[in-house]
Amino acid sequence: MSATDERAGRRVGRVKEISSLGNPVIKEIRGLGLKKNRDRSGSFMAEGLKLVIDALDLGWQIKTLIHARSDKGNPAVETVAARTVAGGGLVLMVTGKILGAITRRDNPQTVCGVFEQKYADLADLAPTGNETYVALDRVRDPGNLGTIIRTADAAGASGIILVGDCTDPFSLETIRATMGSIFAVPVARTDIDGFLAWQSGSGARLVGTHLAGAVDYRAIDYTAAPSILLMGNEQAGLDPSLAGACDTLALIPQAGRADSLNLAVATGIMLFEARRHLLE
Amino acid sequence: MSATDERAGRRVGRVKEISSLGNPVIKEIRGLGLKKNRDRSGSFMAEGLKLVIDALDLGWQIKTLIHARSDKGNPAVETVAARTVAGGGLVLMVTGKILGAITRRDNPQTVCGVFEQKYADLADLAPTGNETYVALDRVRDPGNLGTIIRTADAAGASGIILVGDCTDPFSLETIRATMGSIFAVPVARTDIDGFLAWQSGSGARLVGTHLAGAVDYRAIDYTAAPSILLMGNEQAGLDPSLAGACDTLALIPQAGRADSLNLAVATGIMLFEARRHLLE
Repeated sequence: MSATDERAGRRVGRVKEISSLGNPVIKEIRGLGLKKNRDRSGSFMAEGLKLVIDALDLGWQIKTLIHARSDKGNPAVETVAARTVAGGGLVLMVTGKILGAITRRDNPQTVCGVFEQKYADLADLAPTGNETYVALDRVRDPGNLGTIIRTADAAGASGIILVGDCTDPFSLETIRATMGSIFAVPVARTDIDGFLAWQSGSGARLVGTHLAGAVDYRAIDYTAAPSILLMGNEQAGLDPSLAGACDTLALIPQAGRADSLNLAVATGIMLFEARRHLLE
Repeated sequence: MSATDERAGRRVGRVKEISSLGNPVIKEIRGLGLKKNRDRSGSFMAEGLKLVIDALDLGWQIKTLIHARSDKGNPAVETVAARTVAGGGLVLMVTGKILGAITRRDNPQTVCGVFEQKYADLADLAPTGNETYVALDRVRDPGNLGTIIRTADAAGASGIILVGDCTDPFSLETIRATMGSIFAVPVARTDIDGFLAWQSGSGARLVGTHLAGAVDYRAIDYTAAPSILLMGNEQAGLDPSLAGACDTLALIPQAGRADSLNLAVATGIMLFEARRHLLE
C-alpha cells in the first residue's frame, strides 16, 4: 500500500457531539476496558490533556479524541482536536456523565484519547554504550508494570522487554500508572526462547535479580557493557531457564523477611543503581 | 481496670459455623471495607494464614478468625483457632462464598483475621544510633502507603509517621500491599505541628525529598545521626512549612521529565540509600 492509498484508506476526520451512553461509539470505547476488545481493535485509552499532547508529539496515532463539552473553545483542546482530525481521527464532544462512564471515575479527566497500540520490534532494540534495558518475566500486576515503565523513563532506561505471559501494557490501570511514560519508553514482547536468542546476540550483560543471587547489586560493574536488568514474576520469581542464562545473579540485601520488596520498588532500586554513574 | 477485670470483661472465646451471607456478624465484617466502620469498631482485616500467625506472634489482638470449612482439621488453622479462642476471640467457620464476599475476591485466602487497630504513640518513637524513620506528608494512595510500609520493613527502618490527612493504613488495599509488614513496622500519626515538635526534640536529621532539593540524595551523610526521610504528597509534594523545617532537601536526579517517580519507588530509593551502609 502506497502512502497515498494509506491516506485515502483512512477514516475521514470528523467531529461529533454525543450525549447518550447508549451510542455505539461510546459503547465501543467503554469496551476497551476488556483485553479481548483491546486486542481485536489494537487500541487503548489514555486520559488527560497533557498525556494526549505528549502522545501526539511522540508520534502515536490517535484514533479518537474524547473531550467534555465544557472544554469547547479551550485553545489547547481545540488544537488537539484539530490535530486529531488532520490525522484522520474522530473527535467526540461528550457529557461529564459519559466521560465518567468511559474512565470509570467520579471525577474524570476532561480529555481522553483512543490510540493505536504500538510494540517495539525486539530486533530493533540494539543495546549500545551506557544503555540499560529492563526485562520482565511474567509480570502480572498492572500497577507494577505501569510503575516500572514510569521508573524506567525516570532512570533513562532505553526499553522494556516483556517475556512470556505478562499483563497487558495497554490496560487502563497500567496506562494510568505509567503517567505518560508508555509513550516515551519502547516496550517489546517475546517468549523465553526469543528473549534468550536476542540477548545472546546483543552483547549486553544480563543481570537477574534473584533471592539466591550471589552478588550484591552494588558490587556489579555496570559501566563495562550495556545492561539488561531481568526481574522475575511477583510470586514465582525468575524462571529457572532465565536465571540460568544470566551473566550475574544480583541480590538486594534486606533487613526484614526474605523477598519482601514489591517488584516495582525492587526494579527502581536496581535501575537507579545500574545508572548511578549516569544520573547527576 | 485490673488485669483480672480485663479478662473478665472480654467476650468469651467461641466457635461458630456460618453459611448465610445475611448473618449479622458477616455483615459487620464486610462493613470493614468502609473507613467509618473501621474507625467506629477500631478493627481491620488481614488475609492469609501466614499473616495471621505473624500478627499473633507480634502481639496483635485478634477479634475474629474466619476460616473455610474445608480447613477444619488443618493443624495450622486449628492452632490459630485455639489461640484466638484463648485470647477471647471468635472463630467463624464459613463457606467459600462468604470468604469471597468478605475479601471481595474470586479466589480468596481461606483464612482471614479481624484485628484491633494499633497506632504507635509518637512520643514513644525515640530515634537513636543508626535508625531511620519515614514520615509521609498527606499520602493519599492506599497502595503507595502499603508498599512504603513493606519497603520500610525490608530496609530495616524503625517506623512510619503519617503527617496530616493520610489514607487509612488499615484499609484492605493498604494491608494487602504491606504483605504483613503492617504488623512489624510501628505506624504513628500526627499533624504538622505535632510532627515538627517531635522532630525538633528528637535529635534526628530531617531529610525531605523535594523537586527543588539542593543536595543529591547520594551526597548526604546518613551516618552522623538518625534520619527521618520526609516524603511529600503524590500530587502536591511537600507542604512548604514541612519543607522549610528540613535540615536537608534532597533531590533524586532523573533523566526523564521532572517529578516522574512514583512515591513508593522514590521512598524505596531513598531508604536503600540512607541505609546503604547498614544493608549487607
